[in-house]
Amino acid sequence: MLDTVAPAGAYDPATYRMLSFHDQRGRFLDGSDTPRAYLERCLERIEALEPAVKAWAFLNTEGARRAADAASARYKNGAPLSPIDGMPIGIKDLIETCDMPTEYGSDLFRGNRPIRDAAIIYFTRQAGAVFVGKTVTVCLGGGDPSITRNPFDTRRTPGGSSSGTAAAVAARMVPFGFGTHGRGSTTRPASFCGTFSLKPTYGSINRQGSWSAAHSLDHIGSLGGTLSDVWTTARFAARHAGGDPGHPGLYGAVEPPAPHKPARLVRLDMAGWAVAEDSAKAAFEARVAALKQAGVQVFSRHDDPAIEAYEQLLARMSQLWQALYRFEMRWPLYSYRDHDASKLEARLLRGLAEGANTSQETYRAALVDREHARALHEEIARRCDGMITLSAPGAAPVGMDQGNAIFNEPSSVLGAPAVNLPILSVDAMPLGLQLLGPWHGDERLVAVGRWMAEIHRTA
Amino acid sequence: MLDTVAPAGAYDPATYRMLSFHDQRGRFLDGSDTPRAYLERCLERIEALEPAVKAWAFLNTEGARRAADAASARYKNGAPLSPIDGMPIGIKDLIETCDMPTEYGSDLFRGNRPIRDAAIIYFTRQAGAVFVGKTVTVCLGGGDPSITRNPFDTRRTPGGSSSGTAAAVAARMVPFGFGTHGRGSTTRPASFCGTFSLKPTYGSINRQGSWSAAHSLDHIGSLGGTLSDVWTTARFAARHAGGDPGHPGLYGAVEPPAPHKPARLVRLDMAGWAVAEDSAKAAFEARVAALKQAGVQVFSRHDDPAIEAYEQLLARMSQLWQALYRFEMRWPLYSYRDHDASKLEARLLRGLAEGANTSQETYRAALVDREHARALHEEIARRCDGMITLSAPGAAPVGMDQGNAIFNEPSSVLGAPAVNLPILSVDAMPLGLQLLGPWHGDERLVAVGRWMAEIHRTA
Repeated sequence: MLDTVAPAGAYDPATYRMLSFHDQRGRFLDGSDTPRAYLERCLERIEALEPAVKAWAFLNTEGARRAADAASARYKNGAPLSPIDGMPIGIKDLIETCDMPTEYGSDLFRGNRPIRDAAIIYFTRQAGAVFVGKTVTVCLGGGDPSITRNPFDTRRTPGGSSSGTAAAVAARMVPFGFGTHGRGSTTRPASFCGTFSLKPTYGSINRQGSWSAAHSLDHIGSLGGTLSDVWTTARFAARHAGGDPGHPGLYGAVEPPAPHKPARLVRLDMAGWAVAEDSAKAAFEARVAALKQAGVQVFSRHDDPAIEAYEQLLARMSQLWQALYRFEMRWPLYSYRDHDASKLEARLLRGLAEGANTSQETYRAALVDREHARALHEEIARRCDGMITLSAPGAAPVGMDQGNAIFNEPSSVLGAPAVNLPILSVDAMPLGLQLLGPWHGDERLVAVGRWMAEIHRTA
Repeated sequence: MLDTVAPAGAYDPATYRMLSFHDQRGRFLDGSDTPRAYLERCLERIEALEPAVKAWAFLNTEGARRAADAASARYKNGAPLSPIDGMPIGIKDLIETCDMPTEYGSDLFRGNRPIRDAAIIYFTRQAGAVFVGKTVTVCLGGGDPSITRNPFDTRRTPGGSSSGTAAAVAARMVPFGFGTHGRGSTTRPASFCGTFSLKPTYGSINRQGSWSAAHSLDHIGSLGGTLSDVWTTARFAARHAGGDPGHPGLYGAVEPPAPHKPARLVRLDMAGWAVAEDSAKAAFEARVAALKQAGVQVFSRHDDPAIEAYEQLLARMSQLWQALYRFEMRWPLYSYRDHDASKLEARLLRGLAEGANTSQETYRAALVDREHARALHEEIARRCDGMITLSAPGAAPVGMDQGNAIFNEPSSVLGAPAVNLPILSVDAMPLGLQLLGPWHGDERLVAVGRWMAEIHRTA
């Protein structure tokens, strides 16, 4: 267990446990624990570890205590509002909140106080969620690396741009946090920090009131210490906030699906395999071997020409991501640049200069390419119970560079659901195994993920 | 010509001309007129008529003069930035502007000053557009009727919620204005005020940074004194701002399409025919007869069982609109209500109470219904060169009630393009003929509309 932040952590995915809210709810109902006491344990962790981890852009301790007290009273009366009543949650600071600043990690928005909650925040707040604070992100989701450190080794990045959310969950400060994901911003920090995560089917969790809404590559991400909390919170939020306007929203029951043993998995290299570290590849291969030993069929590009064709298409996802992003990023960033370019970081300004050269015709061609890619993705995804690959080319690098998103761009472009399973480890640091599925296959993917996480821990 | 606002106007669609910017550009290039002089003529009209019409929520006279001077210099140098360089434009106050307040017609947002422009505003501003001011709208697009009056008879409503934009264009205060359209908010005021309008294919003009973005029924509307200005401005905005993220955007050339004589039109009753006024029906029938006389084939429900099936489906659009809107309206309105319910009007609060009873399952069923309706719409729309119907059940009613949107709900639900042609008249007031087409058929619809408007005026 991680009780203090070590300069070089002793992370063991088989034994390290993050917080679970779901597993604790029975004790709120039987009176042996309360949401307020649960919150106080979270706040103690924050007090102890925050100076080193720097996960929080804003802490709302008193507001959280009030919300936790209200939840405690409801449990005492046997009448919690929802499965997430009393759950301490961290909110990435690209998501609007009516009772906390929303600064988008940017000097442009210092002290910005929206009068509204983002859609997911509004409806989870109504259901009793306890919002502990806003978590650190990079400037407008695309600037320089954040100040947050990886709790398992503070010399290393937690990944980004959901840096603070991932680090807070990993450090047992909260059981769950909301992130966003436009390129690798949920799956990568989840991999580097060893949390579970779900980047859902595109549009299936309402993005209104968050930075995510401005791009067709972006999603609301859910990061948690258990897949149960990830699923229940994501599904609950989508049930009440809906998906994006016009979208049916995340499908499935709010209760976490039972673990489901897959019959067939497709193993993907993606473009990332060529640049993955040997230790990461070895850890992944060992997992594949264990899955086969457990009776799961695992197919790859060598078994099926259709998978080979799909792999070749996946190799182009980075390029496609760029073509789409360059056109879409121009708004609102151009407008912010014109307002005060001195408050946009150099990395963002460079990206904007590239965007100026993208025409609507180029963008339309990229949309057509994406439609073709989605069709092939669906074709392969529906032949199996899940696709597996690495979540990142290796463990969190030393330094503050956020790391490579090469394994994450495909799900961002395709809009396909992606689950991070923190079941690999290299260099005593976490590394994620990534599960991908077809559109609207989120619930099934979580069920398969639960089974894979369980056999890993009992193996 | 309308030189002053009459208590009962003498509107004649065959002779009354609104402003054209497109037709004047040659004179900017040859030096016989300038954008600054054009603007001054607009400002004179505003000064004379605004006390009675009340079209403007905010006037940015000095900013507009500076922009017009810059445009004048560019024309003088033979180097205008774009086909809309120097065009005076009114902006519905549901659309963000970085240099003017954006108040959404609501006390909640008094003095609200965004640091950014909405996507369409940013890119048209870059192209030299001269933003004269923000036009009056109803509270958050759905509250009580606005204070704006119909310039042809100030006892009457201009329609809503793009009230100020339509009235400003009709009163020759500006040649063009942006509106939005979630139910009838572009086509209806265009009909009541006798302007041309385009409610484009869903998503084809970027809604980011406007109230429109929160609903799958909503669109950026374009209202103008000529179809040339409507088309060129809409298409130019979409070319540079794009459509919504992930959408290919409005198709076609920026130059207005040549008038196109339709071979086949489908005449639709919609649910509105049953409640339309006799004078409106008679005016419409006369137009249909004139079209037939000009050699256009006009088919109706009596000629084709498929059209009859489509009409029966159209009769359910009002119900479907309600089902979709009730679920989607909950955000951000719930959050605003919780912030300060005293600032939301009774009409909005009543709507919110209804929304509380709409489940995600009901919403999903409505989405499925919509997909079926869209498929049938496309089937019929592609058999002909356009569908024609009334834009409203009659002329603008006396009083401030915004009027019935029954003829407008279908295009809002279906996402199909709708053009208002101000070519009918009853009671010496304007009434619109509405043209509908298939998704992405906007440019062709404008071409057909131009032909219909021309033969009307030469007939």
